Amino acid sequence: MDLDSLLFVTSGWLEGTGKESDVVVSSRIRLARNLAQFPFLTKADDPTRKEIEGLLRDAVSKVRKENKKAKKAAAETEGDQGSRIASESDQPPAKPHYSYSDLTYIDVDTLSKIDRQFLMERQLISRELSESSGPRGVVVGNSQQTSVMINEEDHLRMQVLRSGFNLDACWEEMDQLDDAIEARVAYAYHEQFGYLTACPTNVGTGIRVSVMVHLPALVQTKEIQKVFQAMQKMGLAVRGLYGEGSQAMGDFYQISNQITLGKSEPEIIELIKDVVPNVIDYERRIRKALITENHQQLHDQISRAYGILRSAQTISSEETLHLLSSLRMGVNLGLIETPDLSLANELFIQTQPAHLQKRYAKELSSAERNTARAGYLRERLEASEEE
Amino acid sequence: MDLDSLLFVTSGWLEGTGKESDVVVSSRIRLARNLAQFPFLTKADDPTRKEIEGLLRDAVSKVRKENKKAKKAAAETEGDQGSRIASESDQPPAKPHYSYSDLTYIDVDTLSKIDRQFLMERQLISRELSESSGPRGVVVGNSQQTSVMINEEDHLRMQVLRSGFNLDACWEEMDQLDDAIEARVAYAYHEQFGYLTACPTNVGTGIRVSVMVHLPALVQTKEIQKVFQAMQKMGLAVRGLYGEGSQAMGDFYQISNQITLGKSEPEIIELIKDVVPNVIDYERRIRKALITENHQQLHDQISRAYGILRSAQTISSEETLHLLSSLRMGVNLGLIETPDLSLANELFIQTQPAHLQKRYAKELSSAERNTARAGYLRERLEASEEE
Repeated sequence: MDLDSLLFVTSGWLEGTGKESDVVVSSRIRLARNLAQFPFLTKADDPTRKEIEGLLRDAVSKVRKENKKAKKAAAETEGDQGSRIASESDQPPAKPHYSYSDLTYIDVDTLSKIDRQFLMERQLISRELSESSGPRGVVVGNSQQTSVMINEEDHLRMQVLRSGFNLDACWEEMDQLDDAIEARVAYAYHEQFGYLTACPTNVGTGIRVSVMVHLPALVQTKEIQKVFQAMQKMGLAVRGLYGEGSQAMGDFYQISNQITLGKSEPEIIELIKDVVPNVIDYERRIRKALITENHQQLHDQISRAYGILRSAQTISSEETLHLLSSLRMGVNLGLIETPDLSLANELFIQTQPAHLQKRYAKELSSAERNTARAGYLRERLEASEEE
Repeated sequence: MDLDSLLFVTSGWLEGTGKESDVVVSSRIRLARNLAQFPFLTKADDPTRKEIEGLLRDAVSKVRKENKKAKKAAAETEGDQGSRIASESDQPPAKPHYSYSDLTYIDVDTLSKIDRQFLMERQLISRELSESSGPRGVVVGNSQQTSVMINEEDHLRMQVLRSGFNLDACWEEMDQLDDAIEARVAYAYHEQFGYLTACPTNVGTGIRVSVMVHLPALVQTKEIQKVFQAMQKMGLAVRGLYGEGSQAMGDFYQISNQITLGKSEPEIIELIKDVVPNVIDYERRIRKALITENHQQLHDQISRAYGILRSAQTISSEETLHLLSSLRMGVNLGLIETPDLSLANELFIQTQPAHLQKRYAKELSSAERNTARAGYLRERLEASEEE
């Protein structure tokens, strides 16, 4: 798998499948880790960074090879089981094939600006990794549900994504990946504080559990402010599409834990698992109220959004996100026939600047992107009508 | 022909055919006449009005019968010619069948408000005839290109309409219709002043020659003000879609003469025929400039107008006119594939309040009309895509 081919592969976490996918786009868990024998990156010069990168790249590569072997073995076992018929249900199931069994290393330092932005739009790297300099990279799983950033704020930032509300699956894979890497390197760990990180806000578990929710009805009715306040009281953060400091675009929000210390990983996951269903319910209730009290206005808003996306000759990123948000809600409320949820999700990512520039294989001015974006939207929506 | 069936018949003058039809929707000539033996309507009580109505209704009915005979005779002559082969081109052509050979009398006093408004939207009666009271009516030709109002401001207001820039055809028919009626009744005529009318502004010829033009590019670039000024200097009036006092809707304007005295009918027609081509050229030049200098923005505006009209679930009359105006320009500039000009023209009329209410055969509130209008637009535009 090379970076360019990613453009034509829908990220697994965007599929619109999984639990509560009308509101929850994706679930994500990330761990921050540092190597014991190296200083934090703020104190590391380029040769040291280079050494860290090489070491971690090698460790992850070994994990990958080992996983490939395990996968092969599992496939053989599966084959055996298949021939033995399914009655032997006491037989433990074959070990699941984690997405990190096909990991590709991408040297971020040598990438063009567009490629770095592209990986960021795909949620595979952070803005920090994209915009900093020096030896750094990311290891990406085939289905784009696993990414391991090397030399971001910490030496290691591992992330697992899943479509829908599915933190357990994220944690299961993340836990294994963490163990597999830890078996090869020595993490900076303190008996009392736990895992040590560059920024004190990550010390302890180094975990950030986040759920990306789509809250168009709460935004439209301005009820979203109440959600923000409630989340804050519970020590949770609400951020925009691209994490810290980013604006909420297209009515997408990331709900995540702020505290990493003093609680175990499962406890933090449980907190998010407890709180998010309330937000889901809230958004659904408001959607229902909107559809009951003003069905026609909502239907009109969504139909017009579709009409414009389907016909515009030039369209900005901001307007696109705004209209796609209406469209996505319409799809979930059954107010519109096409596209399906998976395409609605995908259009959010595919219409972003770097995605468009990769598609046209050249740098595009803002005006050119607006034309390319409109053309892409017309093409995809027309095709989905014909399906 | 009854009034209800009119709904499903496109007015001949809306066909989008005829000369310069990218800018000129229709040409119109009307004559104001009064009967010599009756006072003007301002001085006439209801019994007198009733008498006038009866007399004129009868006179028009005789014109109709005579014309039917002439039409039949012409058809027979035509048949003969057909069998004699076409070589005899020196043979004069059969007399044209004027649309007033099939005239229907409509008693406006007994009509519902919706029906009166409907006739007004079709340009068959004036706001004055629609909103006044007492015995009054209109005689309508089958193709809706002829209408004779009885007891409007004057006893008789005859109008002939044609699609495109075609004043000669209007005048030819109008002249004959006027002669045919004058052969049966005595018009109020003064040797020095000419035809006498209720309002002095119509005295003399009693003629109003008007051309309905669509000037979206001049409006968009605000050049329209210059047109207004130039017209005024030449003694011409520029009015909105429904004549005197009405606002310009959908960028439609009526250019007409203000002076009816001291010039012959052909002279007044010539004046309009001389001036309108300049307005046509001006509008076309600006359209060309818009398409050259900002092709994409124009294309986008027109495509979005289509997208919204094609998908909205509720839409006001005002927004519809605004969007249809863009659409009509797009059709003329070849920037959009469907609809054709005839449908674009028709949608302007069919989406108006009384038309919608007649279609649904009931009174509709403003909100209900907006829904009905959106539904009608979606249906017609979808059908035109499938053609």
